[in-house]
Amino acid sequence: MSNYTHQTAPTQFVDAAGIRFAYRRFGARSDIPLLFFMHFTGTMDHWDPAVTDGFARDREVILFNNAGVSSSSGEVPTSIEEMAQHAAAFINALGVKKLDALGFSIGGFVAQQFTVDRPDLARKVILVGTGPRGGEGMASLTPEGQEIFGATYDPADELWLRAFFTPSERSQAAGRKYLERQRARKENRDPLPNDKVAPAQLAALQKWGAPAKDPYAYLKKITQPTLVVNGSNDVLVYTVNSFILQQNLPDAQLILYPDSNHGAQYQYPELFVEHATLFLRGSPNRGDHRRTA
Amino acid sequence: MSNYTHQTAPTQFVDAAGIRFAYRRFGARSDIPLLFFMHFTGTMDHWDPAVTDGFARDREVILFNNAGVSSSSGEVPTSIEEMAQHAAAFINALGVKKLDALGFSIGGFVAQQFTVDRPDLARKVILVGTGPRGGEGMASLTPEGQEIFGATYDPADELWLRAFFTPSERSQAAGRKYLERQRARKENRDPLPNDKVAPAQLAALQKWGAPAKDPYAYLKKITQPTLVVNGSNDVLVYTVNSFILQQNLPDAQLILYPDSNHGAQYQYPELFVEHATLFLRGSPNRGDHRRTA
Repeated sequence: MSNYTHQTAPTQFVDAAGIRFAYRRFGARSDIPLLFFMHFTGTMDHWDPAVTDGFARDREVILFNNAGVSSSSGEVPTSIEEMAQHAAAFINALGVKKLDALGFSIGGFVAQQFTVDRPDLARKVILVGTGPRGGEGMASLTPEGQEIFGATYDPADELWLRAFFTPSERSQAAGRKYLERQRARKENRDPLPNDKVAPAQLAALQKWGAPAKDPYAYLKKITQPTLVVNGSNDVLVYTVNSFILQQNLPDAQLILYPDSNHGAQYQYPELFVEHATLFLRGSPNRGDHRRTA
Repeated sequence: MSNYTHQTAPTQFVDAAGIRFAYRRFGARSDIPLLFFMHFTGTMDHWDPAVTDGFARDREVILFNNAGVSSSSGEVPTSIEEMAQHAAAFINALGVKKLDALGFSIGGFVAQQFTVDRPDLARKVILVGTGPRGGEGMASLTPEGQEIFGATYDPADELWLRAFFTPSERSQAAGRKYLERQRARKENRDPLPNDKVAPAQLAALQKWGAPAKDPYAYLKKITQPTLVVNGSNDVLVYTVNSFILQQNLPDAQLILYPDSNHGAQYQYPELFVEHATLFLRGSPNRGDHRRTA
């Protein structure tokens, strides 16, 4: 599709539903792009180039900022449902008819809702560091999350060393490498999100995570092959929620990595891309999936 | 190491601890063989050639019958601890100083105990369709297991269609293919185990699975990198036990496959071998593991 990479892909814009959406596209020519749904308070620059460029070797990758975040216009809505509607409007404006979705954390909530709303668009789904509606410890930020997001850091992005990695020496070393990779793009970085983003996203995630009757029933609607990935010790969306997702989704594979927290996919980026690529290609033992990407 | 395959490897014998152990070795030359620990009432012929020959492309594979099973002499002991001691005596007699261990079901109990007893021998561990001491629903055969093993089948090996696969059409179709593969060896098959095997193994697994105080503490001793694999709906060793293993082992990765039961690795044999090979080679993001097998 292009010679662009995570570092060089220009920020482009498309108008839909009254929003000017910022996005970046890069990677190998492929029929089905991989659309990335970002986490709490993140911008396109928060994705790990080892992951995005890793996928881009085989397929087209699309990053975007949802409404109200960073270089996109509009306001952040206070529900996951509205975020999913914005994402669908954005994809419609791009003219994409079929995609694979990768959602991380709150982006995983949006990817689930997007798939429920638009089963025609989503072929396969990858849910990373995330959980179901009404999952365990999801009615608000976890106590660990409140402490981590309530503290101050210098430099500020060292927040992610605590939010995404465990305290172990090995995990922290991997975290510092992630920060280096994430800082490597120098030109046309996204502006940091404004002060209205975090409260609105928090309101949305609290509604999504609130206890409910039979909360996991909606997962039966996600019949797409799904890969659920998390760290062994996710303190922001507890790891058991990944197990709950796998047990309640009709066609889900689960992978949990050792000694890792919310950002396990950034601790083991090459292994994660290998696992996810095997999943996206389709298992050699599954006649219903294509063998090649 | 040899041109033998699952189908052609001769049954060999070695004497140790007063037992004449039957075993088969085949596969590519490698420093570290992969030793397979068999499930309840199984013989060497119950392994799936798609799995054993899949691994044998890259490494040496060793199958064996533990004491009292099929072509091995002696009596089946009534504890996992004695089974692990027998396995260590067998490996010592072969002169193997370092290995990777793959244990399935009760073979996974033995592989855990073997690793606790002989950390010098085990480099990495793969635990399939198994659980920890005192795990959930492990104090006896599960109700589903009692029903499945209590019924009669014609032909008799169709037992495994129910024990290893889900009732879904896709899983049953995969099960029939597994049975075909498993029946393909025509020469020098193992004799079926005698009537004393099942009761002794049952006594051993009941002791292993009995409720205990702080039952998972011993898992901290298994510091080897471990891969835990199971189906989404294991009715013989409930799937939650694989999650418990992963959460309590110091360095474990978990993979759960969709729409699958106790024998998930035979439902997705090529994918399982790919995942396990990635694990055995060492993650590209883990400096402590070798990149090649």
